Amino acid sequence: MRILSGIRPTGKVHVGHYVGVFENWIKLQNEGHDTFYFIADWHALTTHYEDTSELKHYTKDLARTLIAVGLDKSTLFVQSAVKEHAELMLIFSMVTPLSWLERVPTYKEMKQQLANKDLSNAGFLMYPVLQAADILIYKADGVPVGEDQVYHIELTREIARRFNYIFKKEIFPEPKELLSKVPKLLGTDGRKMSKSYGNTIPLITTENELSKMVLPMVTDPARKRRTDPGNPENCPVWDYHKAFGTADNEEEKQWVFEGCTQAKIGCVDCKKLLLKHMTEKLSPIWERYNSITEGQVQEIIENGNEKAREIAKQTMEEVRDAVKIMY
Amino acid sequence: MRILSGIRPTGKVHVGHYVGVFENWIKLQNEGHDTFYFIADWHALTTHYEDTSELKHYTKDLARTLIAVGLDKSTLFVQSAVKEHAELMLIFSMVTPLSWLERVPTYKEMKQQLANKDLSNAGFLMYPVLQAADILIYKADGVPVGEDQVYHIELTREIARRFNYIFKKEIFPEPKELLSKVPKLLGTDGRKMSKSYGNTIPLITTENELSKMVLPMVTDPARKRRTDPGNPENCPVWDYHKAFGTADNEEEKQWVFEGCTQAKIGCVDCKKLLLKHMTEKLSPIWERYNSITEGQVQEIIENGNEKAREIAKQTMEEVRDAVKIMY
Ligand code: SF4
Ligand code: SF4
Repeated sequence: MRILSGIRPTGKVHVGHYVGVFENWIKLQNEGHDTFYFIADWHALTTHYEDTSELKHYTKDLARTLIAVGLDKSTLFVQSAVKEHAELMLIFSMVTPLSWLERVPTYKEMKQQLANKDLSNAGFLMYPVLQAADILIYKADGVPVGEDQVYHIELTREIARRFNYIFKKEIFPEPKELLSKVPKLLGTDGRKMSKSYGNTIPLITTENELSKMVLPMVTDPARKRRTDPGNPENCPVWDYHKAFGTADNEEEKQWVFEGCTQAKIGCVDCKKLLLKHMTEKLSPIWERYNSITEGQVQEIIENGNEKAREIAKQTMEEVRDAVKIMY
Repeated sequence: MRILSGIRPTGKVHVGHYVGVFENWIKLQNEGHDTFYFIADWHALTTHYEDTSELKHYTKDLARTLIAVGLDKSTLFVQSAVKEHAELMLIFSMVTPLSWLERVPTYKEMKQQLANKDLSNAGFLMYPVLQAADILIYKADGVPVGEDQVYHIELTREIARRFNYIFKKEIFPEPKELLSKVPKLLGTDGRKMSKSYGNTIPLITTENELSKMVLPMVTDPARKRRTDPGNPENCPVWDYHKAFGTADNEEEKQWVFEGCTQAKIGCVDCKKLLLKHMTEKLSPIWERYNSITEGQVQEIIENGNEKAREIAKQTMEEVRDAVKIMY
């Protein structure tokens, strides 16, 4: 099964991306699928066109991070390196009814929120068309996405169907969305994780820095004092425990639950256990991240770009043939 | 001055195109401008995606026709051969407010006329963005267009300005529309010239075929009989006379006016004079059209594509640099 997914280079990658996206990508890779993962730098422009000073940096850093997390059996590439995505988007735009785009929930929502903000650029409306091109140009069978992207994949299927129908050729398969249970992680202050709140934990850090972020984390509000009992189910730290493996260890799980609900342990003890798990899981990634050279990153990405381009070119040959366009 | 203009390959070229478009293109070429003329096959898809069986044929035939009319000092190319147009359109879409597109008069008009017809595809809304890319990628200074395209050129300037402003680099000049007095030619039945009425006179034809179309043409309705006086100003044939040179010849002009208004000549006499002028002007085009080989057409277009591509690639280098995108 060919799997394709992308991530936008709009900021530093945080642990939420790791447990919510990359772990799933790695799982699919390790199940032996033909996995393609790309850095969606054109998509990043949709919302971040006004300040692109960090775009190249984020793109490169994301490339290094994807390698570091262990996606070494996947094809990693950069969207803007495969110009065929733009050509296919253009052709898809000719057969995609505007009404399909206007009813995309994220579009409607964003439009309401932003009223007459600059964000209502044409590129924002066209986002799902470019996304359909991203996916269909590789004839992907499965697309790992979050809940909020399900409509986009449905639209991708509709575009594939309509293209095949109009041009009387079964070029595009209809990809399925692969929804995975995404562990929910809140920010260190207990609010939604967001760069603008400054409450995220970066994926690439050091043990020392990590502890400085984890130890002051907001916990169950009931545990004001060490002697107050708490409940892990009301504590954002427990969500991290679940994401980083404590919950899979019966003994540790019991230690946290008993300790917390009977005020036998302090939150600092609890967080130290979390730190241990996080460090165990993340330190090999930090090591790889720091040991790869810029040249190695470049080589891996160039190879990925080349491989992606070859497939994209083949698909475009078929597309041009079906559309009966000259070039 | 660099001049750029395009024509859609949506059907057989007729004499209206010649006097309304090509004559002006030739004039600009012969004035020594750096003229680029292209066959807008991607644009043809906007309205003609449902039946593309003739697209390639029309594209090739248009190429041969452009050569035949004498655009031998211009760069002639096919839009779909220069993929950079699609890439620049994608980038422009990120900085083009939707509201700018929604107020394009041709869009509003077409949307009203077609209600829920399939034509309200995304490509139709994006048309002016692709057009802006077509023009700006060559940094054209002037764009010969018809009245109905003036808003599109205004939009092109706005997109150029906005791109330069957002990315803090003066990459794109603001092109001017070059409006020329376009001789109005009606169809042979006196209605608007339209392929669907079957009332057009193809540009490429033979003297014999031409006479079969010109002689039965509708004239001033006042001249029901040979003895009824008429008025050239109320006669579609006189518009053709003006377009093909009779009006520039004082003697002939007087012959038509006197003959018509005093019923001294018959409409057939009048049309025979027109036929003489048309044949004089068009037969060298027919000859060239018939004598060029397919190989020659291909070579000229390939050279044009190559030249266009080189400029487009240079501009895209600058664009990527300004946008600070990786590729
Ligand atoms: S002991 Fe652990 S689970 Fe309980 S409130 Fe403190 S940090 Fe949260
Ligand atoms: S004489 Fe000529 S101008 Fe007058 S009505 Fe006939 S065709 Fe028209």
